[in-house]
Amino acid sequence: MRHIHVIGIGTGNPEHLTVQGIRALEATDAVFALDKGEAKAGLLGLRRQICDRYIEGRPYRFIEAADPERDRRPADYGVAVDDWHAARAALYEGLIAEHLREDERGAFLVWGDPSLYDSTLRILDRVLARGRISFTHDVIPGITSVQALAAAHRIPLHAIGEPVRITTGRRLRDGLGEEPGATVVMLDGDPRFEGLDPALTIYWGAYLGTPDECLVAGRLGDVAEEIRRVRAEARARHGWIMDIYLLLRPAA
Amino acid sequence: MRHIHVIGIGTGNPEHLTVQGIRALEATDAVFALDKGEAKAGLLGLRRQICDRYIEGRPYRFIEAADPERDRRPADYGVAVDDWHAARAALYEGLIAEHLREDERGAFLVWGDPSLYDSTLRILDRVLARGRISFTHDVIPGITSVQALAAAHRIPLHAIGEPVRITTGRRLRDGLGEEPGATVVMLDGDPRFEGLDPALTIYWGAYLGTPDECLVAGRLGDVAEEIRRVRAEARARHGWIMDIYLLLRPAA
Ligand SMILES: C[S@@+](CC[C@H](N)C(=O)[O-])C[C@H]1O[C@@H](n2cnc3c(N)ncnc32)[C@H](O)[C@@H]1O
Ligand SMILES: C[S@@+](CC[C@H](N)C(=O)[O-])C[C@H]1O[C@@H](n2cnc3c(N)ncnc32)[C@H](O)[C@@H]1O
Repeated sequence: MRHIHVIGIGTGNPEHLTVQGIRALEATDAVFALDKGEAKAGLLGLRRQICDRYIEGRPYRFIEAADPERDRRPADYGVAVDDWHAARAALYEGLIAEHLREDERGAFLVWGDPSLYDSTLRILDRVLARGRISFTHDVIPGITSVQALAAAHRIPLHAIGEPVRITTGRRLRDGLGEEPGATVVMLDGDPRFEGLDPALTIYWGAYLGTPDECLVAGRLGDVAEEIRRVRAEARARHGWIMDIYLLLRPAA
Repeated sequence: MRHIHVIGIGTGNPEHLTVQGIRALEATDAVFALDKGEAKAGLLGLRRQICDRYIEGRPYRFIEAADPERDRRPADYGVAVDDWHAARAALYEGLIAEHLREDERGAFLVWGDPSLYDSTLRILDRVLARGRISFTHDVIPGITSVQALAAAHRIPLHAIGEPVRITTGRRLRDGLGEEPGATVVMLDGDPRFEGLDPALTIYWGAYLGTPDECLVAGRLGDVAEEIRRVRAEARARHGWIMDIYLLLRPAA
């Protein structure tokens, strides 16, 4: 039976890889790398670098493919994601059927950790549900951008004993909510911080784990402009950006 | 100047260690391991195992010390934690002053990731604030029990585009709250699931990453009793337990 490792590779630093991830890679015949388009070329590069570095003295195949286009401004968000997942399930099924023999092991290298805002596990479940090919799979956890952010700033995510929520830029538009605790915001394509209390403390980071890492921290009211400026400049320079931030409420 | 690495070592599997963590360990003269008492002896053992395995052919010192006792049923939770942190800051200061020369590198090995329900970073900040010794420090992220849970169950933490909150058993007693999204519960010494919707889906895991890993998943109403039974048995057998669970709301 085919076996697939879904390996979290961390967020930009090839040394985020765990020993467990390396062990799995060493036993891999085919590595699947799905290219999400030119802007993310750097990310595909990291996957190659990781394979070159950690799969020593063993032949393996590196299978690149273009991820289907996603409707970025859909009328119905749920339907658009569902269509996109369906298209990807068909693609993944084809790739596995074509490139992985029945007795081989494959690997999907997932940015950060597979459990957080990544669809690889959902897609593989769909491929299995389609019932045309079969495989076993396991998941190897990786360093998330949440932890990379906290590590870069050398901070805990939350005040003592308090909760932390991880959410998206899209959701943040509804405000921070009433619940106590800290908030991590991912996938915010245009951080405006509108309607947020300027007394919040923000810890922001971009390109975490890479040589281009940038960090800004301070009182939101004081540093919001600086973050938007640094972000726009970096984005223009690199052609893409990945950033994340933590918002802490002022101590009562 | 002294330098201290605060290294996340993952949650029980020595292969959770990252390449970055290994690199830091290789450059370390003294490893500080704080023993939290007999019940956690297994945890101290893991730290030793990690050092033995990854610090190759280089002498290093393994410094064990007993963590000060913590008041487990304090009248005022905030004050008790503060007292405990103060006592630990004094202890850490003494250990560093005594065991790490000015030109050496030390390491604190932190269970999981240092950003999540761990006080090492706060204590080191306190030691610096006391001003009697000085050092630089950095943080190396590690696999958290949250990711170990999701990986063991091979699931994403949240529904598509939804938030996830990480909270404690103590906080869960106030209920799940009104906010949408998934909830991860850590540090629940006695999971009763009281007042929770039996239609929630629960993914529970104990001793994640270790050979004793146990998993239970299902509709909360159906598996709550099983979890309490498995948990009580395992706890009696091992003398200690570390467990964590994810609660997902039924799809609307
Ligand atoms: C599709 S999600 C994938 C998250 C990933 N699975 C993880 O565990 O971090 C992409 C988002 O992660 C965050 N992110 C990922 N890598 C990052 C990095 N190196 N620096 C800053 N943010 C990053 C950004 O918020 C980005 O919008
Ligand atoms: C003091 S917190 C430390 C968390 C750690 N810093 C992390 O990143 O996971 C201890 C709690 O973490 C969870 N935990 C840690 N290791 C675990 C494991 N191996 N299996 C299950 N839960 C674990 C449990 O909820 C436990 O009560």
